[in-house]
Amino acid sequence: MSDTRGYIRLPSPAHILSAASAGGKHEENGPLGGGFDVTDATGSDKFGKDTWEDAESEMQRLTLGAAMRKIGKTDADIDAVFAGDLQNQCVGSNYGLLDFDIPYFGLYGACSTSAEALILGSIFVTLQAPEHTGIAAAVASSHNSAAERQFRNPIEYGGQRAPTSQWTVTGAGAFILGHDGDGNLPVVSDVLIGRSVDLGINDLNNMGAAMAPAALDTLERYFEATGSRPENYDLILTGDLGREGSAILSDFMSADGYEIGEKYTDCGLMIYDIDGTDKHAGGSGCGCSASVLAAGILPRMMSGELKNVLFMATGALMSPASVWQGKNIPGICHLVHIQKQE
Amino acid sequence: MSDTRGYIRLPSPAHILSAASAGGKHEENGPLGGGFDVTDATGSDKFGKDTWEDAESEMQRLTLGAAMRKIGKTDADIDAVFAGDLQNQCVGSNYGLLDFDIPYFGLYGACSTSAEALILGSIFVTLQAPEHTGIAAAVASSHNSAAERQFRNPIEYGGQRAPTSQWTVTGAGAFILGHDGDGNLPVVSDVLIGRSVDLGINDLNNMGAAMAPAALDTLERYFEATGSRPENYDLILTGDLGREGSAILSDFMSADGYEIGEKYTDCGLMIYDIDGTDKHAGGSGCGCSASVLAAGILPRMMSGELKNVLFMATGALMSPASVWQGKNIPGICHLVHIQKQE
Repeated sequence: MSDTRGYIRLPSPAHILSAASAGGKHEENGPLGGGFDVTDATGSDKFGKDTWEDAESEMQRLTLGAAMRKIGKTDADIDAVFAGDLQNQCVGSNYGLLDFDIPYFGLYGACSTSAEALILGSIFVTLQAPEHTGIAAAVASSHNSAAERQFRNPIEYGGQRAPTSQWTVTGAGAFILGHDGDGNLPVVSDVLIGRSVDLGINDLNNMGAAMAPAALDTLERYFEATGSRPENYDLILTGDLGREGSAILSDFMSADGYEIGEKYTDCGLMIYDIDGTDKHAGGSGCGCSASVLAAGILPRMMSGELKNVLFMATGALMSPASVWQGKNIPGICHLVHIQKQE
Repeated sequence: MSDTRGYIRLPSPAHILSAASAGGKHEENGPLGGGFDVTDATGSDKFGKDTWEDAESEMQRLTLGAAMRKIGKTDADIDAVFAGDLQNQCVGSNYGLLDFDIPYFGLYGACSTSAEALILGSIFVTLQAPEHTGIAAAVASSHNSAAERQFRNPIEYGGQRAPTSQWTVTGAGAFILGHDGDGNLPVVSDVLIGRSVDLGINDLNNMGAAMAPAALDTLERYFEATGSRPENYDLILTGDLGREGSAILSDFMSADGYEIGEKYTDCGLMIYDIDGTDKHAGGSGCGCSASVLAAGILPRMMSGELKNVLFMATGALMSPASVWQGKNIPGICHLVHIQKQE
């Protein structure tokens, strides 16, 4: 394979000036629970709202607000926000960010939206237009209960889940991107834009298998484009392949001569203690990769424990109607290379 | 009002290297009918497919292909495609562009997606990364029958429509952006990114009223940012405000001292002969502004008839579920300034 399309080395690395995350009750009880900036003290996952859909919007609102407050930024300091979620017509983001007086780009990349937003935000801040502050925000979220009733059934039905099923994360992540002289901040140095990959998977209960070929395509192209190998990184992290998809990715990479084993994990395997629980193959959703990056990875980069991370958010580009109509589930995977420079 | 946020003068104008459009049978019978590159000879609006959803995807596929062929470009010549539509999870674009081996950014800006894609595509091609060809594509579509059954009722129900209702356009537009020495091509010189505006409209049958305040916000900010006035342009064109929303925009602009009257029209009023037909307040949908720009405006710029156009695609950031849950319908409007330099 000699195709390196989609690879971009940014003309100037984008600093991740700030990040914040939200998590619901299952996420708070998981391994990263202490790291969330926004949680729901009632344990209801409603975040003070009347509907699951509004609860998701509220997580976006609170999480972006928290990220801005950490660095003392107001609406006027931010040139644009790139945001998305899984709800029909992306209303989680539309309503969640309505209170912010910030120019708005809505995105839909399924569960890859966190990386799509980081890529576009990082490109955007390199513009350095004279009218700009040079700061952009990236936000993504999902809510388990909103996703269940939209994509599957209302949770009250108690439908049985397959072992390859994943658990949509109730969570959000927000990131503020810009340029800053502080060499201590993690930077987005280069990225690889994913392309859609369809290998014929059509099982709505096995999204990991549907998305793994896209992760393979993206990661191999990235190694090809950069001449690097797994051992050059501290961590290679997919967004929500879960147990099933992660195993497929590792096996296929190995068959192509890349042993990613010890360097590799998946956000969906980090956010819950999945063994023996009803999380089955692990977490998923736009909020999975976004909240794990903000709550679990960037703090370890700030502390110096991790210096060189490949963040690869994966998405399944389907709708319930498209699968009912007999179509396959294509996957996509966008890669963001995050480095700590010292 | 002294707020000029969202305004960007591009460091180098992006040339619109090529454009193509698709239209269904109602669109083909309208005033722009002769201008579409892709039509369905059967008059069924199925474009050879079995479902309305697949028909929309097929329009995207055929339209991007047509735009690429006009300038002899293949997949490998295009760095990235920015695309969106109105279907849940944007499957119109996901499946429609699957055959293209081009890195993919999915967007959701409701009916503003055509302008959102043109803005992000124009910014993207200014990157001039060494790995790049420097060419991007922007695609948007809608299909009346796919939209009716998703947002309202299956058309077989024969539900009565309100006078303020609009008719979702069956159509698509594709644009190829890059840089070229040919001074004869229209260029995107500057843009204004919209922000969400919510003035409390919650009538699903009056999207024009929901979106007009966003168009007002964007156009006044643009005049403020550039120090220009309506008389400086050959054409000011909104995406799909229809008869109702257009009248609101004109009235409010007039109250603020800007008489846009003779310079102003709306894509939703151009695509059909609406008087006495069932198109009511005019056309709407992602495909409305995209197909009118490609089939009706850019050819008049190429011929020199129009030299200076403000293209403002408007979107209503709601879902059926969000309106059923009692929420308002916020609007957004992204502006693209297109000039012919000689």
